[in-house]
Amino acid sequence: MEKKYNICLDIGGTKILGAIFNEKDEIVYRLKKKTKSEGDSSDNVESVIIKVVEEMIAESGIPKEQIHAVAAGAPGVIDQDAGIVLFSPNLPWRDYDIKSSIEKKVGIPFYIGNDVNMGVLGEYKFGAGRGHQQVIGFFIGTGMGGGMILDGKLFTGYKHKGAEYGHMVLEPEGPLCNCGQRGCLEALSSKQGMSAYIREQVTRGRKSMMADYVTEGVFKSKALKKALNAGDAVATEAVNRACHYLAIATGNMINTISPEVVVYGGGVVEATGDLFVDKIAAEVDRYCMPSIRTTVELKAAALGDDSVIYGALALIEEH
Amino acid sequence: MEKKYNICLDIGGTKILGAIFNEKDEIVYRLKKKTKSEGDSSDNVESVIIKVVEEMIAESGIPKEQIHAVAAGAPGVIDQDAGIVLFSPNLPWRDYDIKSSIEKKVGIPFYIGNDVNMGVLGEYKFGAGRGHQQVIGFFIGTGMGGGMILDGKLFTGYKHKGAEYGHMVLEPEGPLCNCGQRGCLEALSSKQGMSAYIREQVTRGRKSMMADYVTEGVFKSKALKKALNAGDAVATEAVNRACHYLAIATGNMINTISPEVVVYGGGVVEATGDLFVDKIAAEVDRYCMPSIRTTVELKAAALGDDSVIYGALALIEEH
Repeated sequence: MEKKYNICLDIGGTKILGAIFNEKDEIVYRLKKKTKSEGDSSDNVESVIIKVVEEMIAESGIPKEQIHAVAAGAPGVIDQDAGIVLFSPNLPWRDYDIKSSIEKKVGIPFYIGNDVNMGVLGEYKFGAGRGHQQVIGFFIGTGMGGGMILDGKLFTGYKHKGAEYGHMVLEPEGPLCNCGQRGCLEALSSKQGMSAYIREQVTRGRKSMMADYVTEGVFKSKALKKALNAGDAVATEAVNRACHYLAIATGNMINTISPEVVVYGGGVVEATGDLFVDKIAAEVDRYCMPSIRTTVELKAAALGDDSVIYGALALIEEH
Repeated sequence: MEKKYNICLDIGGTKILGAIFNEKDEIVYRLKKKTKSEGDSSDNVESVIIKVVEEMIAESGIPKEQIHAVAAGAPGVIDQDAGIVLFSPNLPWRDYDIKSSIEKKVGIPFYIGNDVNMGVLGEYKFGAGRGHQQVIGFFIGTGMGGGMILDGKLFTGYKHKGAEYGHMVLEPEGPLCNCGQRGCLEALSSKQGMSAYIREQVTRGRKSMMADYVTEGVFKSKALKKALNAGDAVATEAVNRACHYLAIATGNMINTISPEVVVYGGGVVEATGDLFVDKIAAEVDRYCMPSIRTTVELKAAALGDDSVIYGALALIEEH
């Protein structure tokens, strides 16, 4: 029997997105599942993946024998060639050979990569970076993720720890980041960075539709969109400030890499359309060399929430 | 007859350094020549290279038939695979197929690459980066050059315009650079940046042994060394400031690439020994992620003024 389907997963700290692709790279079945209640040992997270895969096979009605491979994007430092999770900040994995373990239990080839790397790989193969050899991505969420396609290949650096330009320092005495640095891009331009700015302004007495969302933790991307549409001044300032630093970071990455495409993805970009890309593009020329800038396109991610899932598909096709 | 010698050149705006290597990669003959007087058309610069090669053959007494190849590092945007000078700031070359032209005239295979890229390639194959797959370099001279070995290969980005992190913006409203940006690393930490700082301090009445050197243009590296040894306060401040920004830029590059080695080269480093590397190393931990920092070594270039020449040799050996 021909193996013509692939199962692709986006494994987050709180939820798993799943899709089954047919041989034409079309999604024929989808699943969304929460992970948090399942406990926090690596064995349990793994068992969730296995359960999700088995559930997807059962509910889609596709025979297991027709599944060619399973692949996943997950947070953390991951060796995508060997299928080993070296370190994961939100999941309890360390030097864990999840590939062998899942393959033994499920009996289907399994691949895994860092979620942002998979997102950029997805955009490179199927989305905004299609047809180009040098593609870099900024994924703007609670954190700030980076991923690079260099000379047509996912680049992750020594021990797969690279592409962390989301933590590029732009203000040495700026706000403290979770990473321990001050004034890095994540602390300035991620949802955490924007939420901190809004919180500061609300604390000093300014009004904002975002006030309730940022009292504890970060806002939801949809709430930001609503506030921007209503002309909320504090929310607008937060976005302008985030885009200012994203423009500097983008300029620095353009000078460093000479990419053909810079892709912006993540929940905030997905919710606000071209807003972030337009604001960054309006300012970036100041922060890179004109001769390099002329051959770079700035684009919003084309696959939206599915970037990571498509990247997992690309990882299967690369093997 | 066996072709066992290679001629390698470092082509600067004002001088050419040349070396003949034997089959053991040892330098058996050296030459140094000024170029400026030769005029400024691409044809004349090319004829200088040809004259130098012929002179080296004649004076070394090595038969031309025993020369395997000639290779050169030169400033500018260069396609090192095709041997085409796309653009050169100081030399009058644009989309110039110097490889074909020189091969036709000299009858020996000719290779060429960007000088800083060749410098990093030289350090990777024969110097401070030996044995590693991810090596990045900062070459501190009148300008600030960058070069990257990624996954064991020289990376130059789309149309060979990348590795310009010498122009990474660190102070958006900082001093103006020749590149047109404000506050980029070159404007802060190169000899031009340090000279500008010293000039400012002298102008406001402070005393410095460097005063005469920076009235017009940049200081000589040996003069800086002398001033530092004498405890010149203004010179010391200029170096501390340069190293502060080099530490931030290094941290940003460590986060971006996850290199195994960062090499610092160029005239200033050559003249001052480990001073720059030590100062940068003392500060860099603040500006990169600890988990990435643990596997990075910071080193002074091991080949000194010969980095570019050895890189040219590596370019021959790669082909």
